[in-house]
Amino acid sequence: MRATTIHAPGDIRFEEVPDPTIEEPTDAIIKVVAGCICGSDLWPYRGENDVDPGTTIGHECVGVVEEVGSEVSRTKVGDFVIVPFCHCDNTCPHCVAGMQSACVNLGITQSGQGEYARVTQADGSLVATDGMPDATMIPSLLALTDVMATGWHAAVAAGVKPGDTAVVVGDGAVGLSGVLAAAQLGAERVVAMSRHEPRQEIARAFGATDIVAERGKEGGARIMELTDGVGADAVLECVGTDQAMKTAFAVARPGSTVGFVGVPHGVELPIRRMFQKNVGLAGGMAPVRRYLPDLLERVLSGAIDPGRVFDLTLPMAESAEGYRAMDERRAIKVLLQP
Amino acid sequence: MRATTIHAPGDIRFEEVPDPTIEEPTDAIIKVVAGCICGSDLWPYRGENDVDPGTTIGHECVGVVEEVGSEVSRTKVGDFVIVPFCHCDNTCPHCVAGMQSACVNLGITQSGQGEYARVTQADGSLVATDGMPDATMIPSLLALTDVMATGWHAAVAAGVKPGDTAVVVGDGAVGLSGVLAAAQLGAERVVAMSRHEPRQEIARAFGATDIVAERGKEGGARIMELTDGVGADAVLECVGTDQAMKTAFAVARPGSTVGFVGVPHGVELPIRRMFQKNVGLAGGMAPVRRYLPDLLERVLSGAIDPGRVFDLTLPMAESAEGYRAMDERRAIKVLLQP
Repeated sequence: MRATTIHAPGDIRFEEVPDPTIEEPTDAIIKVVAGCICGSDLWPYRGENDVDPGTTIGHECVGVVEEVGSEVSRTKVGDFVIVPFCHCDNTCPHCVAGMQSACVNLGITQSGQGEYARVTQADGSLVATDGMPDATMIPSLLALTDVMATGWHAAVAAGVKPGDTAVVVGDGAVGLSGVLAAAQLGAERVVAMSRHEPRQEIARAFGATDIVAERGKEGGARIMELTDGVGADAVLECVGTDQAMKTAFAVARPGSTVGFVGVPHGVELPIRRMFQKNVGLAGGMAPVRRYLPDLLERVLSGAIDPGRVFDLTLPMAESAEGYRAMDERRAIKVLLQP
Repeated sequence: MRATTIHAPGDIRFEEVPDPTIEEPTDAIIKVVAGCICGSDLWPYRGENDVDPGTTIGHECVGVVEEVGSEVSRTKVGDFVIVPFCHCDNTCPHCVAGMQSACVNLGITQSGQGEYARVTQADGSLVATDGMPDATMIPSLLALTDVMATGWHAAVAAGVKPGDTAVVVGDGAVGLSGVLAAAQLGAERVVAMSRHEPRQEIARAFGATDIVAERGKEGGARIMELTDGVGADAVLECVGTDQAMKTAFAVARPGSTVGFVGVPHGVELPIRRMFQKNVGLAGGMAPVRRYLPDLLERVLSGAIDPGRVFDLTLPMAESAEGYRAMDERRAIKVLLQP
């Protein structure tokens, strides 16, 4: 098959690689209908993470089940499925507790930006739709595989509840999804920190009531002003950098929680401040499978439209251009079609 | 009056100092009936914190109201009161949200190991008993001013709920109080990490179902064994050192929370592990006033007997010996009588 691969920082190719095959009887092979590029794919692209030259990249896709292993029973060939980026058996103690991203049989999609992808623990991982969804639904269904579920996890981890003032640090696709999640969970006031007009517009459409364009200390001061000096009831940290984390802790009110979902890079947690202000930290890699049934229902009912985060669609063969567009912030999130 | 002072690491004296006076109309002066030494008093004693030579030390006491300021109405001269170590107005937004340790009018008891202590925000801070309590109750009432409320806060921050397996790291007076709190909050299994026989005994009396004597990696392995490889549902970190924090995160199951109340010294949080395992951190300086009415009722009804953590009682004039006894771990916690 053909798939997107990474050879070195900045070196993305779309090329022939071996077809994925059933390796375990619990596997399934998916024919990808749509894949996309994640903000976290930019870490190796920018040389911030190690690169194993020539490996496939991409962990987000939806598609049709092409083949299943001998122990797969719930998942049928021909099903249209949402593939959570982290695969899970959905039966181990961590899964039962709702922490599927720590499943004892954890797997990660490896070729979501390719023509086919292998899913481990297919019966535990995959959620099928009733029949083939309309093409217009594909972006929102694709968003559920990671970005929307991750924004949702940030809001859940931050403990957003009805009536809250929630602040979202980060206006990438995850941050915007966090805005949508906070609004859906009943926050009365959702403050999006964003300097970029097109992102501000999506944030507003997703339910942001306030936009703070200032960053760092000025941004923090602005939010303290907006909250009468009290701070936010819940803060979603959706970037993963030290500056974003510092901003998050600066605006969180005593007793609140920073929900974090950005893969931490160079973050030093302000433990003294956390202690003195009683501000907690919770979150991590999103247990996507836990949220899928609920989020799928919200998408199908039209309550949410998380596919709006995709502002550029390219043929998979042009995935390298997709990476460039995201790296240069010309695109928020890129959808790739095989 | 005479009070305990610190002049340098290891140099504790009991000497004449100026009487505390009403400085603000919201103040009260307490005649101390009993004070005690906190584990955190050992930080300056050991030279880990800066010392301002000659200042009074001690933030835990109970006593009788001697004098009140002109704006104090609820608190009456002659009341026997429990003095939360952190004073609060109990009306600001942080207090109303249950985070009295972040009160906008925060104060801290300054001479709890002396004959008199000044309490700021007396009406917000103080909780009085009905009449003068029996002398046998004094240790347990004194424990509510900090150590018991702090252990309770660790359990609340860790989210201990009925049926849980809770692990308590630290067998000091706070850790033991954490054991008692976890048991009271319904944990089915409470694992106390302790190497010291007298402390193990109190832990058992407080509700520990299991004792793990091993420390560090071995201790962690033992707890993973006890929990069938899953880890603990809630972890109370009651020390404040890097090793204790590492142990806490090592035994916390994915999706759980480490409740921390030990003043952090040299702690580096394992953020990557927190992210990958979705283990949160919450806690800090305990909002003692929030818990006082409930804890007082539990003491008066005989449901809890937190005064058991005091295993040495000395005249206040011998406070220096009290510090030595705690520093050398000859005593768990020292009660001082004027």
